[in-house]
Amino acid sequence: MGKGQQTRETIVGTALEVASVAGLDGLSIGDLAGRLGLSKSGLFAHFGSKEALQRAVLDAAVARFVATVVRPALARPPGLPRLEALVTHWIGWIEACGLPGGCPLLAAAVEFDDRPGPIRDMLRREQALWRDTLVRAARLATGLGHLRPGTDADRLAFELSATAYGYAVQQRLIGGPVLAAMVRAVLADILARVRVDDVAGRA
Amino acid sequence: MGKGQQTRETIVGTALEVASVAGLDGLSIGDLAGRLGLSKSGLFAHFGSKEALQRAVLDAAVARFVATVVRPALARPPGLPRLEALVTHWIGWIEACGLPGGCPLLAAAVEFDDRPGPIRDMLRREQALWRDTLVRAARLATGLGHLRPGTDADRLAFELSATAYGYAVQQRLIGGPVLAAMVRAVLADILARVRVDDVAGRA
Repeated sequence: MGKGQQTRETIVGTALEVASVAGLDGLSIGDLAGRLGLSKSGLFAHFGSKEALQRAVLDAAVARFVATVVRPALARPPGLPRLEALVTHWIGWIEACGLPGGCPLLAAAVEFDDRPGPIRDMLRREQALWRDTLVRAARLATGLGHLRPGTDADRLAFELSATAYGYAVQQRLIGGPVLAAMVRAVLADILARVRVDDVAGRA
Repeated sequence: MGKGQQTRETIVGTALEVASVAGLDGLSIGDLAGRLGLSKSGLFAHFGSKEALQRAVLDAAVARFVATVVRPALARPPGLPRLEALVTHWIGWIEACGLPGGCPLLAAAVEFDDRPGPIRDMLRREQALWRDTLVRAARLATGLGHLRPGTDADRLAFELSATAYGYAVQQRLIGGPVLAAMVRAVLADILARVRVDDVAGRA
């Protein structure tokens, strides 16, 4: 990795931490330059605009989500084990995504859902991709006989994701161990309602 | 209402619209003064600080939520009709709260959940109050025999609210009529699982 690329990654990593607390709009090239001991013009040269920096930060957040949640789950056997892993890793990410301000993707979605432009387009694409990942995993689990024939994959994905989003919204304000345990019980029950109990044929 | 009070309410109303899009932190006394044709110092005199303006905006958002969601539901008969109305009005609020940027309380919760201080304290208090309103309504519905004996009110309130929060997070990015219909079906099923089917004794 060249020095320019290294500097760029350092900038994006710091910007991701700042944005997780202050929001994507709270990013300031001047403030970032101060934190990193860089000149404002030097930092600006790496991105060219505040929006380009915001896009780079979102890309980094998505990459971290994929590495923490999606990739480990895709390494699990297809079907119910993979679907369960996607949801379990997601809950783990909500609790400890490694950023001071909590999930930067949820924050950005709520911050930019009403501002047309490339950032909103990225967020819409990523949210749809994530929903589709859950829907496909649910469909595969049904196809493999792990979930009841006729299980509505779109609806199952919504129920699972609403539970996780609902947790994410409440966890940092009124959450606690009771809420954390309840969320896991609700997710288990959602899956139990559609699971095929005869697991003889399951991996 | 005195002229000072009237001006204050006009300022807060405009600030609420701005904050619904730009976030509470996106409020700028200079920008607001420009929109309202007031002097910056004149506007500042009404609040004294940006944080006081943010608190006034949150109060206004809560008042609107109470008038749109809570009060009409509390006018319904106690028990299941009231619980259903709380949730139905909430979904309606998510879809059309009358503000350009969507629910200002959800936006503020995600924006400030990681910033200790009076705004976060207010949000935590309001989120807990709202959860308690749902829990109490669920408990009352059980006490009146509308829901099965032993129904876990905390958990029922979480399931209902997670569905609404999950909808709120997705509605403005990837929502649409299919999602709207699905949310209503999910809420109806959550209640159907705990409802006492013999409605002979119900108001």
